[in-house]
Amino acid sequence: MIDDKRNSIYLNARAWVLEAGQQIRNQINEPRIIGTKSNPNDLVTEMDKQIEAFLVGKIKETYPEHCIIGEEGYGDELTSLEGTVWIIDPIDGTMNFVHQRKNFAISVGVFQDGVGEIGLIYDVMSDVLYHAKRSEGAYKNEEKLSALNEDLKFEESLLGMNHYFLCQNRMVDEGVMQQLIRAVRGSRTYGSAALEFAYVAEGIIDGYLSMRLAPWDIAAGIVIVNEVGGISTNLDGKPLNLLEINSLLTCNPQIQEQLLTYIKKGRK
Amino acid sequence: MIDDKRNSIYLNARAWVLEAGQQIRNQINEPRIIGTKSNPNDLVTEMDKQIEAFLVGKIKETYPEHCIIGEEGYGDELTSLEGTVWIIDPIDGTMNFVHQRKNFAISVGVFQDGVGEIGLIYDVMSDVLYHAKRSEGAYKNEEKLSALNEDLKFEESLLGMNHYFLCQNRMVDEGVMQQLIRAVRGSRTYGSAALEFAYVAEGIIDGYLSMRLAPWDIAAGIVIVNEVGGISTNLDGKPLNLLEINSLLTCNPQIQEQLLTYIKKGRK
Repeated sequence: MIDDKRNSIYLNARAWVLEAGQQIRNQINEPRIIGTKSNPNDLVTEMDKQIEAFLVGKIKETYPEHCIIGEEGYGDELTSLEGTVWIIDPIDGTMNFVHQRKNFAISVGVFQDGVGEIGLIYDVMSDVLYHAKRSEGAYKNEEKLSALNEDLKFEESLLGMNHYFLCQNRMVDEGVMQQLIRAVRGSRTYGSAALEFAYVAEGIIDGYLSMRLAPWDIAAGIVIVNEVGGISTNLDGKPLNLLEINSLLTCNPQIQEQLLTYIKKGRK
Repeated sequence: MIDDKRNSIYLNARAWVLEAGQQIRNQINEPRIIGTKSNPNDLVTEMDKQIEAFLVGKIKETYPEHCIIGEEGYGDELTSLEGTVWIIDPIDGTMNFVHQRKNFAISVGVFQDGVGEIGLIYDVMSDVLYHAKRSEGAYKNEEKLSALNEDLKFEESLLGMNHYFLCQNRMVDEGVMQQLIRAVRGSRTYGSAALEFAYVAEGIIDGYLSMRLAPWDIAAGIVIVNEVGGISTNLDGKPLNLLEINSLLTCNPQIQEQLLTYIKKGRK
């Protein structure tokens, strides 16, 4: 994608994300209708749908030739990442949105022929926008984020991961994950994949692991983390596929090998 | 404690905590000297010491007859909670302070003959003060916090707890804790006991469990959570002792019995 085109799309995407965030803030205290999807804890609200419809409407109106992958189904059914593809999550961290009325994000990634060009993660209630364009660095609002710490030691690292890694599961032996938890300095669980990507980019956690994420959970984050020198793969260290569900490891490259070694040891 | 005395102490405590927070913010980007205490991940910094010395100095100067329990040892060696006792943690969440430069709190509780009278938890970098006086309600800055949700269902609750509960440990069977994690809606780990108390009071998590906390980690939180109808005990449902290390369960009373039942089932 040429720089002018990228920048023009970026400016629109940014304006729409900020406007969507304002819509959410305006309605944050209203009663909400909550539904469930794949299981009783996979929540969806009218707000998820409203915001996705808003973003999809703007994109379709301005860029009728672009394709869209979206969580709530207002986008397209894609079998390829050819062309310009927007990958959007109107509310990442819906459980936080429902229970906390904060700590959720709008996530928008724009890819050109499979290459991440633009990433936007908007922490709506804190009014903090993490954003990046390929090769131009990553930002937290106006502040340019530093490259990730090259002196990071594994035993001093802080990881983001949920508690299910330590419960019996089909992906990785929980006993090995217990060893991992004891090997690093600390672990956190924030409940929004997009925000955990942003925190990795910011360097306030050093890695984030997940067993199962959809393309819209990770698209923007990949671009942003990449711009500070971070690396994103699945839990086997293989490339992510943005047309499928993936497991995920995004981290400071200084600790990638050790993390993958633990996971490999416990991988089912 | 009579109301006038409580209010006068509260106003001083509040002013000192806010001033201490300003000192921290002024120095937040300076390089820091980090030491360790009981283990390599039990961190302490010069800032912990500086802030405790500041608070202890103010208290001793103004209330020479009061006693102080403090994390960094500038307080007194107490064997009783008789009289007026300040229980202070200059930086709760030191690992967050070191690694994130945010998500830590100053915690100050004031007890009269063992009864919690005043609680202050100051999220320094967000400039959010959670505060309460006994029988007068709890506040987040100027906003009065609502009583905890009386319609909360156990299976829809969100818990704060660290990942060590799901590792082999001496306190509770990790298999039972896995069942608990799967029984509730979600779990979070924030890395500051004081802030997790504040989040319980705010209703953004419904309970917080810990295996081992010192008096300064819990004193302010107990008072604040109490004012919104929350309840704080050890993991066996017994009263907390502010002269000792305790395990902790602080929660919405709607889910206390179910939480204690799980813990009892797994208790070693």
